Amino acid sequence: MSRAWSLKSRPNGMPVASDFELIDLPTTALNDGEMRIANRWLSVDPYMRGRMNDVKSYVPPFALGEPMQGGAIGEVIESRAEGFAVGDVVQHFLGWRDEAVLPATQVQKLPALGVPPQQFLGLLGMPGMTGYFGLLHVAEAKAGDVVFVSAAAGAVGSTVVQVAKASGMTVIGSAGGADKCALVKGLGADAVIDYKSEGPLLKKLLAALQGLGKDGIDVYFDNVGGEHLDAALATGNLHARFAICGMIDIYNTSKPTELRYLARLIGMRIRMTGLLVSDHMGKTAEFYRVMGGWLAEGKLKNEETVFEGLDAMPDAFFGLFTGGNTGKMLVKL
Amino acid sequence: MSRAWSLKSRPNGMPVASDFELIDLPTTALNDGEMRIANRWLSVDPYMRGRMNDVKSYVPPFALGEPMQGGAIGEVIESRAEGFAVGDVVQHFLGWRDEAVLPATQVQKLPALGVPPQQFLGLLGMPGMTGYFGLLHVAEAKAGDVVFVSAAAGAVGSTVVQVAKASGMTVIGSAGGADKCALVKGLGADAVIDYKSEGPLLKKLLAALQGLGKDGIDVYFDNVGGEHLDAALATGNLHARFAICGMIDIYNTSKPTELRYLARLIGMRIRMTGLLVSDHMGKTAEFYRVMGGWLAEGKLKNEETVFEGLDAMPDAFFGLFTGGNTGKMLVKL
Repeated sequence: MSRAWSLKSRPNGMPVASDFELIDLPTTALNDGEMRIANRWLSVDPYMRGRMNDVKSYVPPFALGEPMQGGAIGEVIESRAEGFAVGDVVQHFLGWRDEAVLPATQVQKLPALGVPPQQFLGLLGMPGMTGYFGLLHVAEAKAGDVVFVSAAAGAVGSTVVQVAKASGMTVIGSAGGADKCALVKGLGADAVIDYKSEGPLLKKLLAALQGLGKDGIDVYFDNVGGEHLDAALATGNLHARFAICGMIDIYNTSKPTELRYLARLIGMRIRMTGLLVSDHMGKTAEFYRVMGGWLAEGKLKNEETVFEGLDAMPDAFFGLFTGGNTGKMLVKL
Repeated sequence: MSRAWSLKSRPNGMPVASDFELIDLPTTALNDGEMRIANRWLSVDPYMRGRMNDVKSYVPPFALGEPMQGGAIGEVIESRAEGFAVGDVVQHFLGWRDEAVLPATQVQKLPALGVPPQQFLGLLGMPGMTGYFGLLHVAEAKAGDVVFVSAAAGAVGSTVVQVAKASGMTVIGSAGGADKCALVKGLGADAVIDYKSEGPLLKKLLAALQGLGKDGIDVYFDNVGGEHLDAALATGNLHARFAICGMIDIYNTSKPTELRYLARLIGMRIRMTGLLVSDHMGKTAEFYRVMGGWLAEGKLKNEETVFEGLDAMPDAFFGLFTGGNTGKMLVKL
């Protein structure tokens, strides 16, 4: 018998343990074309918070009482699907559970890049693609640009820092606390801002720019929103490009975002573009080729935070909003 | 002797009469290559408010005590410049005064489009180009798009409405009060919102969309900021494009902009781009060709509000912020 997390009640603000419930899933026989997968790694992502609200969005809300979903890596343990054999390690979207039954059309084998499989949920998976395509395709960052990235110790942000450095850019990363700042520095960032330390963020960003001998930023990669976005608006150079990827600041609140520097959009002709990785799925060959090359040259480090066991899944999720992870947040089964 | 308005003190918030002073300009002899121009029409524009602050921006601040500047149309009354003769009607940038002395390099003759000269300060001038290039080049609006434009009775907004209709788009315009709304409707807008009437703007926009059988907007042309921008964010369709041209809401205040729907940028992959017409000056030939064609077909109306005499210049300027104009605000000398 397998088990899955389901949403018992829709969180009001910050999710709590009682919003979630482990339910038993009936074991069903496989149909032709299907396989059974024992999940080994479950992905834990900020965007899942949005699916807990009952609002129309780019992915449908989680249904109350039903098994939840998310990225997962597992091993095929039974197969009636052509091309998939017992022992194959695969990626799919039925996470938040220990076992999944899926048709072959909804399962991908992992590219042969010689890395541990869970990296395909992080640096080489959705967060990595988000950072890569967001920085290079949406923000159109190029060598020589000054890049500011918020939540730079997170799964997406840590990719942005590394892709930017591998591409010849100057990078300022923001993270919360000394440990995370050290991690971001270790990934190659030219300057790091601790957003939890005393003082306004804008002042820290201006100091970081001055320290690097730069007047402003050419690119902002936003994972946070709020004060970070405003500081980016305040320091954006002429024709700066912002990729807006996340606003973790407001996922658990209904407070409006206050921006003091929004009018600089006009004077500086800044461009802000919302980013979802799903728009870029047609370009994964480029992603694996380029990232694979950087991996082989030793230019990329994988950062992850691992919780153990299916029972820990909600705690891992809460950790996303309390600064509990560096790099990709994962649950290992 | 000629006279010019100068800035006596930098306005704090809304400008007042005592911030301005008429000064006498000494009459100087012309150098080779220069001409003397009697101004006939002075341009009155919202962006001028920004030049009254002592902050670095895309145009330098007005110097206290010096003659102010702005667009103007005048007649050459004395010429030592080759190619310019007494009686030529020309356009230049030494407004806020009755007479200007300029070298030929800073003076343009008006294109021969058979319209009254002051239209080259409005529909066929900077505001017209701002609307045209902002809508078609920055927001990349195309036939079939649903376009929302704020301050639709203003110089830029009224151009946007007409360019959009001439290009096969559906247009919702927002304006303040019944008279302006009637004017916007008369320009061809499919629906009009009175932002001064009772109730939240978003509700009115949703009602207008429903009345047109539309789900959301594909393009927003922003002249206002604030609640208008937030309503546009709330109703933006997938891959909607916003041209951010002005934020008259905040020109006279230092309050932050509050946005409740900013995160829709991400889910809908909305693109917001700041717009200054100066980036598009290399494409004026296209502008005159296309707009000239529409003029000849009777598809464009020129809207203007005229104040009389140099003394009225500050009052005309104040009127921009108190809803005093429909279409282009002008002072006739």
